[in-house]
Amino acid sequence: MHTVDGHPGEVHPASARRRFAAGLVTPTSGWSDGYAQANLIAVPQDLAFDVLLFAQRNPKPCPVLDVLEPGARGGPLLGAHGDVCTDIPLYRVYADGRLVAETTDVADRWTTDMVAFLIGCSFTFEAALLAAGVPVRHIEQGTNVPMYRSNRDCRPAGRIAGPLVVSMRPIPPDQVSDAVRITSRYPSVHGSPVHVGDPQALGIDDLDTPDFGDAVRFSPGDIPVFWACGVTPQLAVMQAAPPLAIAHSPGHMLITDLAESDLIAP
Amino acid sequence: MHTVDGHPGEVHPASARRRFAAGLVTPTSGWSDGYAQANLIAVPQDLAFDVLLFAQRNPKPCPVLDVLEPGARGGPLLGAHGDVCTDIPLYRVYADGRLVAETTDVADRWTTDMVAFLIGCSFTFEAALLAAGVPVRHIEQGTNVPMYRSNRDCRPAGRIAGPLVVSMRPIPPDQVSDAVRITSRYPSVHGSPVHVGDPQALGIDDLDTPDFGDAVRFSPGDIPVFWACGVTPQLAVMQAAPPLAIAHSPGHMLITDLAESDLIAP
Repeated sequence: MHTVDGHPGEVHPASARRRFAAGLVTPTSGWSDGYAQANLIAVPQDLAFDVLLFAQRNPKPCPVLDVLEPGARGGPLLGAHGDVCTDIPLYRVYADGRLVAETTDVADRWTTDMVAFLIGCSFTFEAALLAAGVPVRHIEQGTNVPMYRSNRDCRPAGRIAGPLVVSMRPIPPDQVSDAVRITSRYPSVHGSPVHVGDPQALGIDDLDTPDFGDAVRFSPGDIPVFWACGVTPQLAVMQAAPPLAIAHSPGHMLITDLAESDLIAP
Repeated sequence: MHTVDGHPGEVHPASARRRFAAGLVTPTSGWSDGYAQANLIAVPQDLAFDVLLFAQRNPKPCPVLDVLEPGARGGPLLGAHGDVCTDIPLYRVYADGRLVAETTDVADRWTTDMVAFLIGCSFTFEAALLAAGVPVRHIEQGTNVPMYRSNRDCRPAGRIAGPLVVSMRPIPPDQVSDAVRITSRYPSVHGSPVHVGDPQALGIDDLDTPDFGDAVRFSPGDIPVFWACGVTPQLAVMQAAPPLAIAHSPGHMLITDLAESDLIAP
């Protein structure tokens, strides 16, 4: 593990991306305060229309920040020298929908027809919740947010289909309204909750056994609040089993030049 | 011209679509009060990813209400029996970017790879302006809204590129704020204005000679207010000169089952 000069929150996105490109492997939570981090999902061009249409039809789980041109490795959110193949600390590579590698660089796997989707990430609204005094329990507990496959189907698009995956945050009852209000300002990072209370109505029998991430402890009185989750498009793409797909490794995101303040809905 | 039983505003969308499919040719302004009307632009699948990405990158001029599956003629916004090839009163057919036909039915031209984009239309926010007492001059004057090519380029996507086209409505100075506030509630039908006052800053030398639509008379004191316009994607697609493209004829829109109230931003 490399050491970081200064506090990670104070590292500029371009500098963070350079450090990751040079080999630093670390989760990106807490890095580059004030800048949006993105989920990466890249697929061959043959599947790109279906993926973009799936995102258009399901904007809450799949808020698109940008899509790079086919084969492109840079784009306006990545500055002059950004490279989506090197600038993420850790990648996952899938063949026919199965994980085949976890690696720090995917340049040698990037074909000229790969299309990279940059999808908004809930780190942004969690920062806004914390700034407003709304507790975020999994951050307090130093764990990953719990995520669940719900019983709701996304609207399919071509070969892309799958359930809505939700993340859950326990919220004190007198702050549920604040949590809704604050996150609704950020439609490009999943926006307002899809569900408040009653996990069973979403087909979730046991909050203590999430499908992804870690279980989280409730404080007395906390209400479970559910948001659409960026794992949704990843799951839907893997079900289509494309010959090649490349994603970030969980928690190891792409740090963009997009200011979080620019994500606030007009 | 067929006659209409009852006031057109009271005709249900499914009934309106059936009448147009049966041959009625009429502009759709004032039809099916409370339901969203849509621009149609359909292109071969080969170009569909570029068009969808162009829309994603330029949401103000290209607010996507829905995209039909390749070859599909129906979709959830058109009810059980809707057919995008017959249910618009009048179509324009383009070959290699040139207008080759204006017709009431395109079923015989629809190939299995055609992808239909349904794009939001400003009729919805004009109804909201009128309901709030903001005058809409071109409706008062019984003419089409004036539209102008601006000097702003859209963000291109693959083969799709072009200028931002704007529509202009003269607004009394004490109601400009209302006009901004009201239209900002409808991001899926172009949303808030892109510009208020000073046409020359948009590269428009003479408001009396619009590039599309009709010139409109100002009342004393009116300020020109500019909104992103749905002609933008049509122009950008035609510049790419696909072998086939099908659009609605101006003013002859697709009446959808989508309630205008559902278009209000959360």
